[in-house]
Amino acid sequence: MSVMRLGYVHVRVTDLAQARKHYEQTLGMDAVHEEGGRVYLKSWDEDDHHSVVLEEGGVGLVKFGYKVTSDGSLEELESRVAAFGAHSERMSKGENAGIGDGLRVTLPSDHVLELYADVERLGTKVGKLNPDPWPRHGLRGIGVPRINHALITTEDPALLERFFADALGFRPAERLVGGDEPKDLVGSWMFCGENPHDIAFVNGPNGKLHHFAYEIEDWSALLRAGDLMSMDDVPIDFGPARHGITRGGTIYFFDPSGNRNEVFSGGYRTGPDFQPITWTMDQAARGINHTHREIDQDFLQVVT
Amino acid sequence: MSVMRLGYVHVRVTDLAQARKHYEQTLGMDAVHEEGGRVYLKSWDEDDHHSVVLEEGGVGLVKFGYKVTSDGSLEELESRVAAFGAHSERMSKGENAGIGDGLRVTLPSDHVLELYADVERLGTKVGKLNPDPWPRHGLRGIGVPRINHALITTEDPALLERFFADALGFRPAERLVGGDEPKDLVGSWMFCGENPHDIAFVNGPNGKLHHFAYEIEDWSALLRAGDLMSMDDVPIDFGPARHGITRGGTIYFFDPSGNRNEVFSGGYRTGPDFQPITWTMDQAARGINHTHREIDQDFLQVVT
Amino acid sequence: MSVMRLGYVHVRVTDLAQARKHYEQTLGMDAVHEEGGRVYLKSWDEDDHHSVVLEEGGVGLVKFGYKVTSDGSLEELESRVAAFGAHSERMSKGENAGIGDGLRVTLPSDHVLELYADVERLGTKVGKLNPDPWPRHGLRGIGVPRINHALITTEDPALLERFFADALGFRPAERLVGGDEPKDLVGSWMFCGENPHDIAFVNGPNGKLHHFAYEIEDWSALLRAGDLMSMDDVPIDFGPARHGITRGGTIYFFDPSGNRNEVFSGGYRTGPDFQPITWTMDQAARGINHTHREIDQDFLQVVT
Amino acid sequence: MSVMRLGYVHVRVTDLAQARKHYEQTLGMDAVHEEGGRVYLKSWDEDDHHSVVLEEGGVGLVKFGYKVTSDGSLEELESRVAAFGAHSERMSKGENAGIGDGLRVTLPSDHVLELYADVERLGTKVGKLNPDPWPRHGLRGIGVPRINHALITTEDPALLERFFADALGFRPAERLVGGDEPKDLVGSWMFCGENPHDIAFVNGPNGKLHHFAYEIEDWSALLRAGDLMSMDDVPIDFGPARHGITRGGTIYFFDPSGNRNEVFSGGYRTGPDFQPITWTMDQAARGINHTHREIDQDFLQVVT
Repeated sequence: MSVMRLGYVHVRVTDLAQARKHYEQTLGMDAVHEEGGRVYLKSWDEDDHHSVVLEEGGVGLVKFGYKVTSDGSLEELESRVAAFGAHSERMSKGENAGIGDGLRVTLPSDHVLELYADVERLGTKVGKLNPDPWPRHGLRGIGVPRINHALITTEDPALLERFFADALGFRPAERLVGGDEPKDLVGSWMFCGENPHDIAFVNGPNGKLHHFAYEIEDWSALLRAGDLMSMDDVPIDFGPARHGITRGGTIYFFDPSGNRNEVFSGGYRTGPDFQPITWTMDQAARGINHTHREIDQDFLQVVT
Repeated sequence: MSVMRLGYVHVRVTDLAQARKHYEQTLGMDAVHEEGGRVYLKSWDEDDHHSVVLEEGGVGLVKFGYKVTSDGSLEELESRVAAFGAHSERMSKGENAGIGDGLRVTLPSDHVLELYADVERLGTKVGKLNPDPWPRHGLRGIGVPRINHALITTEDPALLERFFADALGFRPAERLVGGDEPKDLVGSWMFCGENPHDIAFVNGPNGKLHHFAYEIEDWSALLRAGDLMSMDDVPIDFGPARHGITRGGTIYFFDPSGNRNEVFSGGYRTGPDFQPITWTMDQAARGINHTHREIDQDFLQVVT
Repeated sequence: MSVMRLGYVHVRVTDLAQARKHYEQTLGMDAVHEEGGRVYLKSWDEDDHHSVVLEEGGVGLVKFGYKVTSDGSLEELESRVAAFGAHSERMSKGENAGIGDGLRVTLPSDHVLELYADVERLGTKVGKLNPDPWPRHGLRGIGVPRINHALITTEDPALLERFFADALGFRPAERLVGGDEPKDLVGSWMFCGENPHDIAFVNGPNGKLHHFAYEIEDWSALLRAGDLMSMDDVPIDFGPARHGITRGGTIYFFDPSGNRNEVFSGGYRTGPDFQPITWTMDQAARGINHTHREIDQDFLQVVT
Repeated sequence: MSVMRLGYVHVRVTDLAQARKHYEQTLGMDAVHEEGGRVYLKSWDEDDHHSVVLEEGGVGLVKFGYKVTSDGSLEELESRVAAFGAHSERMSKGENAGIGDGLRVTLPSDHVLELYADVERLGTKVGKLNPDPWPRHGLRGIGVPRINHALITTEDPALLERFFADALGFRPAERLVGGDEPKDLVGSWMFCGENPHDIAFVNGPNGKLHHFAYEIEDWSALLRAGDLMSMDDVPIDFGPARHGITRGGTIYFFDPSGNRNEVFSGGYRTGPDFQPITWTMDQAARGINHTHREIDQDFLQVVT
């Protein structure tokens, strides 16, 4: 498949200075570019120009970008999107700092998703020559290595799953179903490479973000991350806990504007022959939070 | 000091078969003795005869025992208890299976605490000759190695702290205070050796148990323990989380009768020169659950 | 790319009963099929029929198999292999228990590599409906979840790298180089999906196996694996340690016939846009064993 | 018992600047005092004035100090030392920066051991009021929290064990024996509180240091410590590995002058009723390095 992974997320924040403190000091990202009320941030293990863009004013998801293998694949993706009956338009180098030409797609769920292959490489903090496993003098706070996935909400999960499968070549790893009909789909966790999921969505309002996630080393890194969230007064939604869905370890928390973040560890390896897992609604709480088997209302209702 | 550690806890359980399933299959203790509606259980790394006794009928703490260094020290403890104005009586070998002569004390909080030095040794599961770090073929479920401490409730924490200090030689490691007066003590975490705490108590009804705890290897063992609790449908109160008080890792959960258990990992080392830590009420939630800084009402109100 | 991952390894073992004890009791694989001096084994998190085949008599690698996305892709792979000038032949369903039609390739390094898409699915031990993160009653010993990669030796690493790139679509994640010429390549770690490596090879005799590896949950699982190796008298080559190359955690050890196994944890995520890392010979020891920066001679010289 | 724990270690270092870099930047200790070619260092979780003193010139142990419960207990210890036939002398406040009056004992193994109760408290980096579990802005490098024990060598282990037991009130947790006679004792790991060991000694030259150890949080902290040792080019002796003796996790390494340090995690809890464990010589390697069951000659022979 030509879509490789989540490349960047743009989120609105009410107060840019507070947001920078969160993403730079607590999470440990580095600001690589700043212009017109936007701050572009990169994690230490990411090669590409940036992965998070903070846009001053309001709260919530502006758009996200998925990186594809080559400019050539954009054309095929464009055709498939059109064949599905969804809207897309070409975007040009320079519309996003560091990002080349691409395709801007409006999802059936009203989210804006950008596809691109061309991106300026700033390099990781350990480099490509005899690298250390992590940067001796370049970590700050949690020190997140890279972003991993996003979970959005949609009024029609079945439609969005078809779109990601047919137009973008994703496959479902795990599906939460309310009954036997395709329309009974409550949520889907889909991958484009070997991640347990690169995009996920659950039933909810169109156009909204539930969270975007950083992957961190392991369960022990989650404890340290939780310690730092407490020290920096970051509100936690839930975790540390084990997910049933994906098996990953997790902490959900909020940036100062109320956008939900996740630090995520572990999870299994998928691939083209992965057989999807089904969760039924009576076990949904165990799917979300395997450890506690309870979900608080904030987790279900707060989206931005 | 002559008191060494928490040796055993007797708890009432409504259904002995269900309770055995919890303590034997999920926690991994072994039944070593059974008589008259009582089951005596031992963890794999405990030398002594038993550490938990299940008594059929009802729910809640019956009594607990602390082991002292020698029979000789019982006399001095008896005098100190009397000097404090508390009640005690001698107990005889055979009143508790495997336990020798001792002293039965009624705490100012109406709990029954037994002190004893003489106990039959059944040995750990790894033995004393070229032992492995854990028993290759002797673990079951969580495989708790040993019990560690108990937390009880009392109408008068300041009085109980004086009793444990003056009569039993404990020292406070951490104290939760509501103001500047001694009477403003809300809770105290006290040690007799080098544990962060061997006994703790918080304000609440006299005679009640908040929880008793098992120590496990580390934060990673907590994840696995949480997985098993989910698989075995054990209700979790809170955790995995970091305690502010003691720095330990924790999961609180309930046995089938509703008695609260804890698995606890880590924590610092105390000792006779340890300077107590003070927690103020505005930071109490961080003290209990450093990670989340929230305490649910069940945690505060459910005691047995 | 159409090659997905390492699917199976066939190794010769001098004593089948001893070997089964190692792979079943210590590693925790399950025998799923047995015929004609061969035992087929599966790990608990693998869907497909088997991943390790023990063949009685001798020692060393017989052949290995990589799974491809579809039968259709075999044709293209066949052409590319031929275009490269290497030998291949069609293999038929039934030649390997549980495996369908495929392509048998003789590598430029004289190893036999089979490619196949069709394989009987026996399913994982947690199933596909509301699964637990690991099987409550189905683990044994280390409980390896799945195999991950193999490292082989070749007289001409540069040639073999070209073959895996041109004929099979792999890319190098990390390369150990002795100088500036392509022919100075000492070793290459190559991936076909998003693993840090799915195949690796270093300079050495043609046709030999250095090790094949299982992935396990994390660094803490490595400690427990090491404990079990000691308890079961499994010889350890080196580890627990951190690899510089891949960043993974590792223990290398030997089966009773002297075939080297690895348990491997962590490592980063690659993909089609991953820029290869270069290691120079002066830092080779740090690349292999980042923690100790020393390599013992056994590690370099023992191959089977 | 009145001896509480290892309080400080004085070691000679050939180059003070290099040594400071090791103990301050890699291990993360803070220099608290400097005078006359001596640097006094403290770990972040230690209350007392210092725990390591670097003395410029040469290499090896100068002396170590154990903290006792009170000045009053020094008198009894003095008598016991004399009764054993060993030499001691009073030391005065000011002879060691921050340390009060004490007793300087010459061990039967020619080591100098100081006993003291009075010491200036500089406090931990998290303080005693609503403390965080670790200092948000006060860690550097490995960030060792505190020292834990020392292992020395002696020509007569049986004699030294009697001395620590009879004169200082220590008890053996684990004993390595060569035969059935007391004189066949090869090594002893002894505790004064609830540590698995506070002092240990093995057969070797009198007056020498094998290593002194820092305790760190857990097995995951060992991986990170090992990463930092590699990044800072610290020579590792062995580890990460599991000890059979004490069950602890370990890495042994050297400071720039060749003094051996250890980072140590975990281990069980001892106490006055702990029954000693016996290791026989055929299992000695497993006792030292449970994971590998091999000991390199450096580990046995290098002492300073």
